[in-house]
Amino acid sequence: MTDGQEPIRDIAHLGHFEIYTPKPDESLWFFKEILGLEETDCHEQSVYLRAWGDYDRCTLKLTEAKRAGLGHVGWRTISPQALDRRVQALDAAGCGKGWIEGDTGHGHAYRFEDPDRHQMEVYYESERYLAPPQLQAKLINQPQKFTARGAAVKRIDHINLMCSNVTPNREFLQGTLGFKLREKLQPEVGGVEEGAWLSVTPLVHDIAYTRDFSGNRGRLHHIAYWVDSREEVLRSADVVMENDIFIEAGPAKHNITQAFYLYLYEPGGNRVEIYSSSYLIFAPDWEPITWRKADRGRGVYWGGTLPESFKTYGTPVVAASTAEKGDLFVFDPA
Amino acid sequence: MTDGQEPIRDIAHLGHFEIYTPKPDESLWFFKEILGLEETDCHEQSVYLRAWGDYDRCTLKLTEAKRAGLGHVGWRTISPQALDRRVQALDAAGCGKGWIEGDTGHGHAYRFEDPDRHQMEVYYESERYLAPPQLQAKLINQPQKFTARGAAVKRIDHINLMCSNVTPNREFLQGTLGFKLREKLQPEVGGVEEGAWLSVTPLVHDIAYTRDFSGNRGRLHHIAYWVDSREEVLRSADVVMENDIFIEAGPAKHNITQAFYLYLYEPGGNRVEIYSSSYLIFAPDWEPITWRKADRGRGVYWGGTLPESFKTYGTPVVAASTAEKGDLFVFDPA
Amino acid sequence: MTDGQEPIRDIAHLGHFEIYTPKPDESLWFFKEILGLEETDCHEQSVYLRAWGDYDRCTLKLTEAKRAGLGHVGWRTISPQALDRRVQALDAAGCGKGWIEGDTGHGHAYRFEDPDRHQMEVYYESERYLAPPQLQAKLINQPQKFTARGAAVKRIDHINLMCSNVTPNREFLQGTLGFKLREKLQPEVGGVEEGAWLSVTPLVHDIAYTRDFSGNRGRLHHIAYWVDSREEVLRSADVVMENDIFIEAGPAKHNITQAFYLYLYEPGGNRVEIYSSSYLIFAPDWEPITWRKADRGRGVYWGGTLPESFKTYGTPVVAASTAEKGDLFVFDPA
Amino acid sequence: MTDGQEPIRDIAHLGHFEIYTPKPDESLWFFKEILGLEETDCHEQSVYLRAWGDYDRCTLKLTEAKRAGLGHVGWRTISPQALDRRVQALDAAGCGKGWIEGDTGHGHAYRFEDPDRHQMEVYYESERYLAPPQLQAKLINQPQKFTARGAAVKRIDHINLMCSNVTPNREFLQGTLGFKLREKLQPEVGGVEEGAWLSVTPLVHDIAYTRDFSGNRGRLHHIAYWVDSREEVLRSADVVMENDIFIEAGPAKHNITQAFYLYLYEPGGNRVEIYSSSYLIFAPDWEPITWRKADRGRGVYWGGTLPESFKTYGTPVVAASTAEKGDLFVFDPA
Repeated sequence: MTDGQEPIRDIAHLGHFEIYTPKPDESLWFFKEILGLEETDCHEQSVYLRAWGDYDRCTLKLTEAKRAGLGHVGWRTISPQALDRRVQALDAAGCGKGWIEGDTGHGHAYRFEDPDRHQMEVYYESERYLAPPQLQAKLINQPQKFTARGAAVKRIDHINLMCSNVTPNREFLQGTLGFKLREKLQPEVGGVEEGAWLSVTPLVHDIAYTRDFSGNRGRLHHIAYWVDSREEVLRSADVVMENDIFIEAGPAKHNITQAFYLYLYEPGGNRVEIYSSSYLIFAPDWEPITWRKADRGRGVYWGGTLPESFKTYGTPVVAASTAEKGDLFVFDPA
Repeated sequence: MTDGQEPIRDIAHLGHFEIYTPKPDESLWFFKEILGLEETDCHEQSVYLRAWGDYDRCTLKLTEAKRAGLGHVGWRTISPQALDRRVQALDAAGCGKGWIEGDTGHGHAYRFEDPDRHQMEVYYESERYLAPPQLQAKLINQPQKFTARGAAVKRIDHINLMCSNVTPNREFLQGTLGFKLREKLQPEVGGVEEGAWLSVTPLVHDIAYTRDFSGNRGRLHHIAYWVDSREEVLRSADVVMENDIFIEAGPAKHNITQAFYLYLYEPGGNRVEIYSSSYLIFAPDWEPITWRKADRGRGVYWGGTLPESFKTYGTPVVAASTAEKGDLFVFDPA
Repeated sequence: MTDGQEPIRDIAHLGHFEIYTPKPDESLWFFKEILGLEETDCHEQSVYLRAWGDYDRCTLKLTEAKRAGLGHVGWRTISPQALDRRVQALDAAGCGKGWIEGDTGHGHAYRFEDPDRHQMEVYYESERYLAPPQLQAKLINQPQKFTARGAAVKRIDHINLMCSNVTPNREFLQGTLGFKLREKLQPEVGGVEEGAWLSVTPLVHDIAYTRDFSGNRGRLHHIAYWVDSREEVLRSADVVMENDIFIEAGPAKHNITQAFYLYLYEPGGNRVEIYSSSYLIFAPDWEPITWRKADRGRGVYWGGTLPESFKTYGTPVVAASTAEKGDLFVFDPA
Repeated sequence: MTDGQEPIRDIAHLGHFEIYTPKPDESLWFFKEILGLEETDCHEQSVYLRAWGDYDRCTLKLTEAKRAGLGHVGWRTISPQALDRRVQALDAAGCGKGWIEGDTGHGHAYRFEDPDRHQMEVYYESERYLAPPQLQAKLINQPQKFTARGAAVKRIDHINLMCSNVTPNREFLQGTLGFKLREKLQPEVGGVEEGAWLSVTPLVHDIAYTRDFSGNRGRLHHIAYWVDSREEVLRSADVVMENDIFIEAGPAKHNITQAFYLYLYEPGGNRVEIYSSSYLIFAPDWEPITWRKADRGRGVYWGGTLPESFKTYGTPVVAASTAEKGDLFVFDPA
């Protein structure tokens, strides 16, 4: 918003994300049996999935590839007009890559890149999920039956992208798409910005950018699905342990966003978060929270710390740059 | 939205509600000690309160009066311009009552009435809560310390107003303020609309209108505060029982909105809901859910039923009309 | 305990129960997929099952029969000597029926009847469950993997038997087996005893006797399995609803025993409880709690009521006697 | 049990513990306002407290002293005869210290020491708590009102004592008092026993002995109170954080005992655990679980680790012996 103009409010929500996996069968098993997603479609090298509470036809596209990592992020606009406006803004910013015809679950979409070259798209037309008879819920306001399978995550929540420099990526989303900055990690006044949490909805973040301490760029930190209670996160951790999935951190509570988190590596190597708690922001004039070193106590809220890998591990998995690495945990899905 | 126009998106969220109580001391005790709200201000016959997670200075105004009931509902706009637009629309609809200078916690506001004559206001300027030292939270993104007092509700959620005829009230909010209809209770096709759940945010409802089966108009059904888990609703029920507060229904789960609810009567007679679970709607083109008789099973989700009072009891407490009453429960705060 | 003698402490715990079902396939589906039990053995007309946290080989024997109802209840003694002592006492009481050779999961057992002719047995030798490789838990102190299937109940908890007259049955268990009375429902001083909750462990009840208001005798009220939290009971209710299992009552909280309950009818017609919360009794000199009419408020703890069927429905399903029936709910599995 | 003899079953349960504090006012504030205990009595330098679900008059005796640490542990027997038998056994073992007249809440008691010289006592007569009118619960089977204050712990659970050598202490309790070994930590076959978890009840442990890696003896590791759900442990952690209480570890899940734990240091320096989950043992012939190094994964169940202080910090606070210390955290309440 500049000079009394009203803010851009054209993006409705995070629609879906696509991730790559070098182990498609194992990854698919994980997302269906452990995370509890439902497979809705399958085309070529991709499987499309959604959580039981997702009312869109697809929120995760899982694509076979040589290396793990982000395929793309899809943002839905509030209207066709809003889509046109955003395409103009993206074009003007010189980051547009052109239209695609659409994909399973949504209509034509405009592709673009953020400064770190993460692939994204905006679209409006979206297909609502219709449950087949055996998956129809007893509640007509619930998109499908509660299957109670595995962690049984409820809905897509957010994505976290690692980047070489948080600031330009964050400013790009604010400037071209109207994202609002909710929280920021900048340990020293005037120092490097290590993380930014942004949203277009009342969720604290639809997307986060965090610094890639390995010195790389364009990588995926994690995708996140929501469950309704902290108890469900704990239960998920029990499920995950029994199925030999690597837990990197949690269950515990973040300072930033107040999230109650559990971080896993799915068999393809991508980090996945099972997420709950946190808080909602309805204020149109929210003042971003800035976290300094002194605000974070010993690390996470109750006093634990995140492992070093949390700052350096991402997908694709790459060797850390020599300058800043700590005790780098290297998870090699190969 | 008409003919390709984009929808009105000028209301940001439910800001506050004012309720009347004939028993100000007992009501204040309830809201502070049992619901766990924080008192922030006190002027003349009113006390101003907020939940520990509310970042506005005030979300409940509790005013001494001869009878219980609704004072008014306050809606915050997304900008000053949006406020101007809504005032014009309200004026054009002939339901405007003029500006007031403001109140504790917010700037000048425009008063109006819905068709059932419930008092409402729109405003933009809102004061952010600043915790005094003894109430400062360890988390800088949390407006105040988690006090863990009583039910320790987290934030304002919604309001439910009873009305003689749901349809015109519902259409009024849609037409003048841009509320979106999320769910509707209309037992018979073409029959009477018994309830409507509307919102401007991703919450399933910021406001509901439900039919007053006593034949009265302009009454309050309930105000609702949020807690983060169903377990906290259960815990609240234990707290409430130990303190001789009347539980009308719950804890249980609604079909409509999927809410996990607990309905109480505060000592002044107003119904209060402690609320969790439910679901969020991010889709810009949500198709309202219509509940028919056959969709609701035996009543509420797991098979219980709501007491008759749920359809006829509201504040102010009045005698039921003879035509439609069932086994009317009369709670007399006098 | 008489005249300074020390109390009988020979029964260790509830070992297992056998129930009959006229619909063996549907019942087995329910116990495995919905309740989440594990099938361990299958002989002739019976399937043997246990919960993931049960360390014995079998806690439920499900037997095909013409009508639903109780097969028998198995009590494990603390030692072989204790078994001998109890057999002597049962013989002396004239209710013994002789030894059986044993069954899957336990050694030779002595059969007897309570005054209402419910079949029971005492035994000492019990087989500990050894999980096959695919079901081995990551925790060596957990008998098997947490499967997270359906309600995923954790362990056997208790049984509730209906009887024509509570008092003699209750006194029989106290006198011959050393059960301790924990709570008692006797609405009027000197009036009829409507329920008795007894245990040999710190659980509030390993067994309850409740009055059969239909005027019948020897029937089963319900069997109960434990989950660790109230949230899991709620989650179970969601699972159950999606699978067309009839919920008779709950989730809610009893006054008596403080149980958080959910009552279902399994497809064969037997009532099953999913149970949590409650409290433990360690005192060797616990004074039984006696509930009078005035102590129970409106019914169950938070104000709801149990349906009439709770007092009259049992298995086998029979017509109610004319004298005392209310609005009898008849569930007919045929 | 030797040669066919039946096992000793004379101890009913952990009755109470006494701890010393050099900061009586701050400690009392912690136990009342943060842990949520109720003060029942106060004599000389001691305050007596209990949890809302404790039916005994007192489960914690808090005594002013120069240094923090254990006062004594009180075990209740099942009968007066059982008390006599245990006194004979203790005398025979040469560890008896003689009778005391009794204390608030219990009758005459026999004092003794374990090999590490932790002070203990056995007694039978115990006073049941009677709530004053303002603390009477709505439920007649609940010893007092649920106050919902602070963590609102429900009942006493267990105690953990550090010792120079686990084995003789563990064998002492087994031999003289009939404690049953439930789990044991012995990382190497034939190696040093680092921990033993014992009980006389179905709880996994009424007492644990763990090795004092600082090389000291006779110290207190922690006292523990129970809450009914993991969610309540998490909530307690939030309460504790807001009140500047040091969290040493958790909330997280142990491998051993399957406990869901939160470890705090109360202002006097003693470690306190808020505890839930775990499992119950009813089998009379339970085979102790032995944990080897390979069974414990990375530390605690979901992959975190306990801080070094967990092995070396105890009360009284003392300097670590030079031989075995790691990064010793020294909490100095002075």
